[in-house]
Amino acid sequence: MIMDTINIGLLGLGTVGSGLVEILRQPQPRLAARRLKVTRIAVRTVTPERQAQYPDIALTTNSTSIVTDPNIKVVVEAIGGRTAAKELITTALTFGKHVVTANKDLIATDGAELSQIAAAHHVGLYYEAAVMGAIPVLRTLRNAYAGDPISRITGIANGTSNFILTQMIAHGASYDDALSLAQSKGFAEANPANDVDGLDATYKLLILTRFAFGMSPTIDDVSIQGITTLQPQDFVAASIWGYAIKPLAVSELTPDGLCMRVAPHLVPLAHPLAAVRDENNAVLIDSHNVNRLSMVGPGAGALPTANSIVADLLDLADNIHDGNTPERFVDTDTPAVVADAAHRVSPRFVGIRGDDVTREQLAALGISGRVQRGRGRVTVLTGPVTDSAVAQWRQVLTTVPGLELIHILPVL
Amino acid sequence: MIMDTINIGLLGLGTVGSGLVEILRQPQPRLAARRLKVTRIAVRTVTPERQAQYPDIALTTNSTSIVTDPNIKVVVEAIGGRTAAKELITTALTFGKHVVTANKDLIATDGAELSQIAAAHHVGLYYEAAVMGAIPVLRTLRNAYAGDPISRITGIANGTSNFILTQMIAHGASYDDALSLAQSKGFAEANPANDVDGLDATYKLLILTRFAFGMSPTIDDVSIQGITTLQPQDFVAASIWGYAIKPLAVSELTPDGLCMRVAPHLVPLAHPLAAVRDENNAVLIDSHNVNRLSMVGPGAGALPTANSIVADLLDLADNIHDGNTPERFVDTDTPAVVADAAHRVSPRFVGIRGDDVTREQLAALGISGRVQRGRGRVTVLTGPVTDSAVAQWRQVLTTVPGLELIHILPVL
Repeated sequence: MIMDTINIGLLGLGTVGSGLVEILRQPQPRLAARRLKVTRIAVRTVTPERQAQYPDIALTTNSTSIVTDPNIKVVVEAIGGRTAAKELITTALTFGKHVVTANKDLIATDGAELSQIAAAHHVGLYYEAAVMGAIPVLRTLRNAYAGDPISRITGIANGTSNFILTQMIAHGASYDDALSLAQSKGFAEANPANDVDGLDATYKLLILTRFAFGMSPTIDDVSIQGITTLQPQDFVAASIWGYAIKPLAVSELTPDGLCMRVAPHLVPLAHPLAAVRDENNAVLIDSHNVNRLSMVGPGAGALPTANSIVADLLDLADNIHDGNTPERFVDTDTPAVVADAAHRVSPRFVGIRGDDVTREQLAALGISGRVQRGRGRVTVLTGPVTDSAVAQWRQVLTTVPGLELIHILPVL
Repeated sequence: MIMDTINIGLLGLGTVGSGLVEILRQPQPRLAARRLKVTRIAVRTVTPERQAQYPDIALTTNSTSIVTDPNIKVVVEAIGGRTAAKELITTALTFGKHVVTANKDLIATDGAELSQIAAAHHVGLYYEAAVMGAIPVLRTLRNAYAGDPISRITGIANGTSNFILTQMIAHGASYDDALSLAQSKGFAEANPANDVDGLDATYKLLILTRFAFGMSPTIDDVSIQGITTLQPQDFVAASIWGYAIKPLAVSELTPDGLCMRVAPHLVPLAHPLAAVRDENNAVLIDSHNVNRLSMVGPGAGALPTANSIVADLLDLADNIHDGNTPERFVDTDTPAVVADAAHRVSPRFVGIRGDDVTREQLAALGISGRVQRGRGRVTVLTGPVTDSAVAQWRQVLTTVPGLELIHILPVL
């Protein structure tokens, strides 16, 4: 059977876009058999030098001309951001083009709406690369868990945060030094807020939750805490009690509904996620049939991310060559039921500045457990406590003179 | 769209077969949407009690009547063994039925032939459950690596061996005690030879090699070594040098061809596979784009294995409902090029009984490196050595009086 070439229009030629072009140029027989070809790329500025690098691809500054081009069958969106990307993707879908994107912000917030537009136009909208780079977690959730009820997804979803905490654990680096190193290695942006404040991991958690539990909660349903309050003393205190501190995103289905949390967590040293280092991402899926499956791999980078885009393109290509409408990427959407703060329970790791705080003072505030003292602070490892109780602690602790709350971290 | 029910005929109602029926009975909406239904099961003996457990399924002792039944669309083979299973699968494919199997022995040896029969009759032959139980490694290799050249696959493919070695590492158990515990927990069979001698892992490695490198080498191309020579002293000696000992299956593409090895390996303690414990399986894929992806999960058991059969059934169901011929599970088969023993190089861990062997005696045999002595044995950690040199050592060592070779293990 001779197959038609599938023309691809690429929006954006940054890290991921250029990685995609590089992969599609490699002479791989299984890839070549699908006859995928990038014919046009939208860039911000076209220079003769840049065009010369891509002799068989037409560069343009006109994105709209690509998403409406009748010769383009698949659009890959790699520009990022929300507003322009949403408009371009919507137009592409409306014009009957399949779309592949790595845009987690957009998919986390507007994914359900865009999926409906795709379904209405009988085209595919795939975004494996949006969550955890090279780890094929979305397709695995879709293919292997349709008959297996999932109870919890636990991930290291932000490579920047994991790199920074690894530096602080392994080398005793300060937060600022670890961040600088991450920036110099290209693992953190000049403005790292989205990564270190937990927003990036939250977007990924929302998408994972949709695939694992068939529900689309919103960002307000997630308890979000960044890594910026961590100090070397925290890692020392945690390790004395047998814990590492890892930047986790957790979505759990409890009898009271979904519990979703992005925060640096205390993780037992023997736990598989405690060993996931540097800029790696990881995901651990707990379920009824499989029990526990974990996957670890690079969460970012040009080729790892582009490789997941290629997996989406192969899936689309098989459907296009067969003349089928691609399956919906996620096919259930039941109303989200979210557990309230009174039902979200875990032990806590409480860090307080001021080492003359007594155990009795803490007990009077309702905070009790194992205590470490020294280096100008008191650290407490409590038993299971609700999020409501923690919120009260936060309020009360601001009213006690000479005492400053650093953070309250959950324990996995 | 109203879809027709897909009738499934199941061959065998042992661990995996009954796990499959259990999963398909669970009320999962995404599964229910595919309308998969086991209508007939072939068992060795039908009793009224057994039939009563499956009121809506017809039990029979006549397997042939299932694989030729015009009302059956998909046959799931869960009887194991080679001869009868091959005949039944061949008949089913010839009668135009899709087949799902967990039969690694058969697929490892006759998979290429059966795939051709399937292709000739435009039906699917899927076997995700044959390799590493619940870990979706075959589908991941197929979906995510078509454009990513793989350099090496490293796996813990035999859960029995991993359980036994974990007991020996963690609790200093003897090999015999660890084996007895594995048997009492149902992780090892009464006759554990296939597991502990490396044959089971070899079958899985042959299938993984086909998916990773598009080549079908034979069992004679694999260097196979079991775990039965290991003793608690080995784990002590290895850990002093910073290594764990894990039962690995490795397939690597070198400039001289494929190197395939099943053996207990020394693995650096910080290596991700060193932390994979108990009866778990694991796979680590090294490649150009992704760099390194690892997956860990249960390698056996009723529900984990049956869950991978369900993943195959879902894939088939989507194709059947769309009226498509399912994609071939593995779509390339280039002639296998295998590196010869002179090109297979790694450091070695040599265990010799008799602690009066001198360093000079060893050097005269060509064996040099770091030496540990004590508890009636000498242990040497050598530099990189070829398999040909190791074969010579084995010969020479039998000729030295008062000296007994225990084993020579590769170092990862």
